[in-house]
Amino acid sequence: MNSPSPLSRQSDATLTEQLSSRFAEHIRQHLIAPGARLPSVRECARRHGVSPYTVVAAYDQLLAQGLVESRKQRGFFVRDQRRSAALVDESSAPPARMAAPVSATMLVRSMFQPPGSRPMPGLGTLPMDWLDLPMLSTALRRVSGAAQLGALSLQYGEPAGDMRLRRVLSLRLTDLGVKAAPEQIITTLGATQALDIVTRSLLRAGDSVLVDEPGWSIEFARLAALGLRVLPVPRGDDGPDLTVMQHLIEAQKPHERPRLYVTVSVLHNPTGASLSLGHAHRLLKLAQAHDFHILEDDTYAHLAPAHLPRLAALDALERTIYISGFSKILVPNWRVGFMAVPPGLVDRLIDTKLLTSLTTPSLMEQALAHCLEQGLLRRHAERVVQKLDAARARSVKLAESVGCRFAAPPRGLFGWVDAGVDTERLSHAMVDQGWLLAPGSLFHATPRPTTLMRINFATTQDATFWQALERTREAI
Amino acid sequence: MNSPSPLSRQSDATLTEQLSSRFAEHIRQHLIAPGARLPSVRECARRHGVSPYTVVAAYDQLLAQGLVESRKQRGFFVRDQRRSAALVDESSAPPARMAAPVSATMLVRSMFQPPGSRPMPGLGTLPMDWLDLPMLSTALRRVSGAAQLGALSLQYGEPAGDMRLRRVLSLRLTDLGVKAAPEQIITTLGATQALDIVTRSLLRAGDSVLVDEPGWSIEFARLAALGLRVLPVPRGDDGPDLTVMQHLIEAQKPHERPRLYVTVSVLHNPTGASLSLGHAHRLLKLAQAHDFHILEDDTYAHLAPAHLPRLAALDALERTIYISGFSKILVPNWRVGFMAVPPGLVDRLIDTKLLTSLTTPSLMEQALAHCLEQGLLRRHAERVVQKLDAARARSVKLAESVGCRFAAPPRGLFGWVDAGVDTERLSHAMVDQGWLLAPGSLFHATPRPTTLMRINFATTQDATFWQALERTREAI
Repeated sequence: MNSPSPLSRQSDATLTEQLSSRFAEHIRQHLIAPGARLPSVRECARRHGVSPYTVVAAYDQLLAQGLVESRKQRGFFVRDQRRSAALVDESSAPPARMAAPVSATMLVRSMFQPPGSRPMPGLGTLPMDWLDLPMLSTALRRVSGAAQLGALSLQYGEPAGDMRLRRVLSLRLTDLGVKAAPEQIITTLGATQALDIVTRSLLRAGDSVLVDEPGWSIEFARLAALGLRVLPVPRGDDGPDLTVMQHLIEAQKPHERPRLYVTVSVLHNPTGASLSLGHAHRLLKLAQAHDFHILEDDTYAHLAPAHLPRLAALDALERTIYISGFSKILVPNWRVGFMAVPPGLVDRLIDTKLLTSLTTPSLMEQALAHCLEQGLLRRHAERVVQKLDAARARSVKLAESVGCRFAAPPRGLFGWVDAGVDTERLSHAMVDQGWLLAPGSLFHATPRPTTLMRINFATTQDATFWQALERTREAI
Repeated sequence: MNSPSPLSRQSDATLTEQLSSRFAEHIRQHLIAPGARLPSVRECARRHGVSPYTVVAAYDQLLAQGLVESRKQRGFFVRDQRRSAALVDESSAPPARMAAPVSATMLVRSMFQPPGSRPMPGLGTLPMDWLDLPMLSTALRRVSGAAQLGALSLQYGEPAGDMRLRRVLSLRLTDLGVKAAPEQIITTLGATQALDIVTRSLLRAGDSVLVDEPGWSIEFARLAALGLRVLPVPRGDDGPDLTVMQHLIEAQKPHERPRLYVTVSVLHNPTGASLSLGHAHRLLKLAQAHDFHILEDDTYAHLAPAHLPRLAALDALERTIYISGFSKILVPNWRVGFMAVPPGLVDRLIDTKLLTSLTTPSLMEQALAHCLEQGLLRRHAERVVQKLDAARARSVKLAESVGCRFAAPPRGLFGWVDAGVDTERLSHAMVDQGWLLAPGSLFHATPRPTTLMRINFATTQDATFWQALERTREAI
């Protein structure tokens, strides 16, 4: 923190947010040691050229995030996250349902950094200015007239979710070759709740579950928090390594064999790879032979060509549960997701939804239904894909110009890049310059050193980032 | 179904909804046997004086609810719910995390009946026309201007929930004597998600949990679905029977002792009783001696006087987690709830929220914050309480005029009434006349025959209901 980069008064984020976000990054990356005291309010205000009020507000935000603690008369101190983690472990003998890996929940928290003055190459979302606010505003107005608002608010709503949204989703899924009647569709609080409801309904603590590796570590953490045993299967360019998968299954005792495989089949996070048709077919045969369900997470559906094969289409929703949402393309905070499920599972999954949250907000669901019915989302997605194609071309050129290699052909939102040095060390060094990276270790079920990292093509078009990366790589 | 009461064209509900709701009730109450065929579309249309189109739409709704199945060329048949339940059981050996008691999930589904032409004495919500739609409409408009909408929609939002709502909740909680900084407050998808997050974070499958009996059976089902052992404690007029509670705790092996007590301390569902101050104090001493947490569910907060003691106030949120929401007073479908939690649990509970649903919709949370900030909710709640007082006086008089006795002094929303006959039989007989009851067996952890039932004072002011009850009671 000796020569902090200046806070921006032109940023969308307030100075308070920028400052607290800066500190939060440092604390999370252990650049400020646990137990260390934060600078005094006066000193910090002087150093960053802001008012003491701004500093107090920023420290309060850190307090709220549980990153620091306040000691009377003495100031703010960085909390010892390991100590908190140890406390969690003490209170729960194995199988530890609740002790999620701290690193993963820390990562998910980093998704909520207030937007800084710079794009964040490590984050998994589209930049705010790529989203279509007027569309959302119109859609919301359309469904919040007095009569509709009453119908959508004053009762609990339908357990399976808003019927208007489920009808239009049913139609849209046919574009992907997925045949799901509205009665097979259940809306959820984002795709995340869908993942949670399915795993909770089909599995119990101690069961094992197959996942892709590399894969999304928040998902690994969620599964671990349910007390499930995570069995990682190497993910290649065509799909999961089926030989390894079969060996893994057969290596388990019969009653401990996996009951579920969770996968992002299309535009896989982080490699961008999509399942080939032949692979999909063989995977389904394996699932049938060993009688496990498949949870197909199609989070990036709107960024991918419709012709790419979905497991749910091949399988006709027999043993595949299809999940998607709108956070990655339209509106992260409305939290609208859904699942299309085999007829035999509908009741069980609705029951779990009811017991865990009753219903989901219909207002958001109907607003989204409006966007879908009018074709607005489709046109928006086309514009985003065009923008993303251009961004990807620029990012790839810049990455290669500083000697980075792509470990998988660049596609979709994410690049899986070999930076040539340990990316965990690289990200520690980069964060101090205001760049948040997503080191490859975060995408492994058991973190390990790697020179790979995930970049977001939408936020790495800036030569400054690649120059900073080149300089930093030389320095470490 | 020989002499059906006529469908109403003046009702808020469409004819389709009324018809499907009528059938749904009969199926759920086993008045139409599993496997039985529904009347043909033409026959049903004739009998109810509606168009065949209405009947087809109603049957489709039943299909969507999983209550009937369609067989090609043969029509619609009532599904065998027991068979579905058996399938669930087969697929999961004990401890069965997911096999929730069918009766309870069937009950929760009955909460979603479309509104019929008659008030429903068995439901737990306020009538729609008691709610204040113009207030909601204004609040929503206030927070959905373009600038605000962007800030509230285009990012994921704060993990703990919208800060504006958390600030005003922190202020309002002081009215109840509960001191919770905004940093100790976490918003949730209704109070239900709060209950779920807390139990998932603090307990694991096989743990035991103390509950009140009688109590809310959906909550029992939720706990059972998590694989928890439910230990019911008799609930008296002053609070739980502490002698029984202590015996129950001491009867468990040391490592199997309960780690949590879940209770509705104020305006308890179904008895309407509230914890006395002395009882609250002794309960907290017991909790300290045996080191368990208390989950205080204050769902009926807005219908209760502020001076009634809350455990969270006495305990200063040391081992009490306070939960409340707005579904019972303002807007069921916006699904805004929250918890106020001990500082040491904040991080762990936010992590569970993140892993299970990321965030909650800020738009709904800020609209609610607006209602709270402007004092609109407070004034609305005062009006509702006045209305409810008048309704209760009328209902009590009517109930007593047909010889029903109140097993607990009438207070709040619910009356706990002795009908003099087995209320399960009574409710079967009443549903055919279009009256949905809540028999006392639904409020026991292990259902048992009882002459008690819960009534909703807001929906039992109609002499017709009590006359029907009196007639039916004579007949059975």
